[in-house]
Amino acid sequence: MSNRGQFITFEGTEGVGKSTQLANAASILKALSIDYIVTREPGGTPMAESIRELLLAPRAEPVNEITELLLMFAARAQHLHTRILPELEAGRWVLCDRFTDATFAYQGGGRGVPAERIAQLENLVQGSVRPDHVILLDAPVETGMTRARHRGELDRFEQEAVAFFERIRQTYLDRATGSPARYHIVDASQSLQAVSDEVSGLIRELADRA
Amino acid sequence: MSNRGQFITFEGTEGVGKSTQLANAASILKALSIDYIVTREPGGTPMAESIRELLLAPRAEPVNEITELLLMFAARAQHLHTRILPELEAGRWVLCDRFTDATFAYQGGGRGVPAERIAQLENLVQGSVRPDHVILLDAPVETGMTRARHRGELDRFEQEAVAFFERIRQTYLDRATGSPARYHIVDASQSLQAVSDEVSGLIRELADRA
Ligand SMILES: Nc1ncnc2c1ncn2[C@@H]1O[C@H](COP(=O)(O)OP(=O)(O)OP(=O)(O)O)[C@@H](O)[C@H]1O
Ligand SMILES: Nc1ncnc2c1ncn2[C@@H]1O[C@H](COP(=O)(O)OP(=O)(O)OP(=O)(O)O)[C@@H](O)[C@H]1O
Ligand SMILES: [Mg+2]
Ligand SMILES: [Mg+2]
Repeated sequence: MSNRGQFITFEGTEGVGKSTQLANAASILKALSIDYIVTREPGGTPMAESIRELLLAPRAEPVNEITELLLMFAARAQHLHTRILPELEAGRWVLCDRFTDATFAYQGGGRGVPAERIAQLENLVQGSVRPDHVILLDAPVETGMTRARHRGELDRFEQEAVAFFERIRQTYLDRATGSPARYHIVDASQSLQAVSDEVSGLIRELADRA
Repeated sequence: MSNRGQFITFEGTEGVGKSTQLANAASILKALSIDYIVTREPGGTPMAESIRELLLAPRAEPVNEITELLLMFAARAQHLHTRILPELEAGRWVLCDRFTDATFAYQGGGRGVPAERIAQLENLVQGSVRPDHVILLDAPVETGMTRARHRGELDRFEQEAVAFFERIRQTYLDRATGSPARYHIVDASQSLQAVSDEVSGLIRELADRA
């Protein structure tokens, strides 16, 4: 039994069920009396949330891809060092809605930024810190899109074409299959009940191991 | 006679006369009928100016030094690629109030971020682009502080201790003496008239060479 909390991230394309399953995982931890916080990226501290607003706001000015990448990591540095790491060290689990895998998937696979550049920034900002476990909710792009569309207005990312999200999905899958011990691929095209059961089982297993 | 504009930056510690001498340089270019724009860092485009506001706003949350560094370079990537480079390519000179030397001086010398980390981001954002000429206005820290203090409220940087600005001044001087062809050190403790005459002479010389 270690004293340090587990750092668990939820990943996947738009509307696939990340926020839903994060809430589900939180309810399992609560039932198990494990202390945790829930947070999200980009964001998680007041300053990082301000950076998130800059990133997501639709704007006339075309956003340079390196600008976008650096803003993502600026928010992450603030979130990781001022909030996530202190919580983990205090023994609390951190459930985070997206993290660096999303940068490799969106800015890398989606926008074509070379993975080595992203890895360079990952090392600058995180040193050797990585999530202990990544729960990848995988479903056809259209499935998530249809779920998300019911929620109304689209942000700057959601306005992209389907091919953009296909590349993102594939990048997530490639990363997950490359490191099977840390990544848990969940078929998110299943019913809400089936997905929730699978994620609940996984969280209970991680709690047993911790 | 090249068609590309000259990229000239104005550097130095707080209140030393950067904005005053940039305006002076602009008036010389105007008299010589050379097309130019004036701009500043962090900032220079609407998005980059929004990043500037995030950086300079006094806030309760302590700002992680890597967050600060990445925000600076995010603003710079946007400014350089969407504004400065297109202007230079169109043949206009760019007079810029601070640039990457300020990052080496403030985040590096001032806050202690290793210079190699800054250089890594410089290469990521700028490739091989560097200012053609840097005008370094050098004066004792107290001289600039006294000049700046007359202007009212201090921002998050201006609230730092004198030792912080001494390290910044020294970093600027070290960089300038290391690359004498690109850096022009001007003694900014002189009278406004004397400093302006020196900068005017320098700009006329650069215009002759271009
Ligand atoms: N397995 C499922 N079957 C059907 N609907 C689902 C399923 N999982 C989630 N939903 C519904 O789909 C919508 C999107 O879910 P959710 O907000 O959790 O996705 P998300 O991945 O967090 O989206 P975003 O990328 O926009 O943050 C919600 O209305 C949710 O109730
Ligand atoms: N050589 C000089 N002698 C006396 N006063 C000067 C001199 N140069 C500039 N000043 C005055 O000092 C003040 C600060 O000058 P300025 O705003 O140009 O400095 P700055 O380096 O741009 O400051 P900041 O770092 O705050 O942007 C102004 O009031 C300006 O008129
Ligand atoms: Mg969500
Ligand atoms: Mg100024």
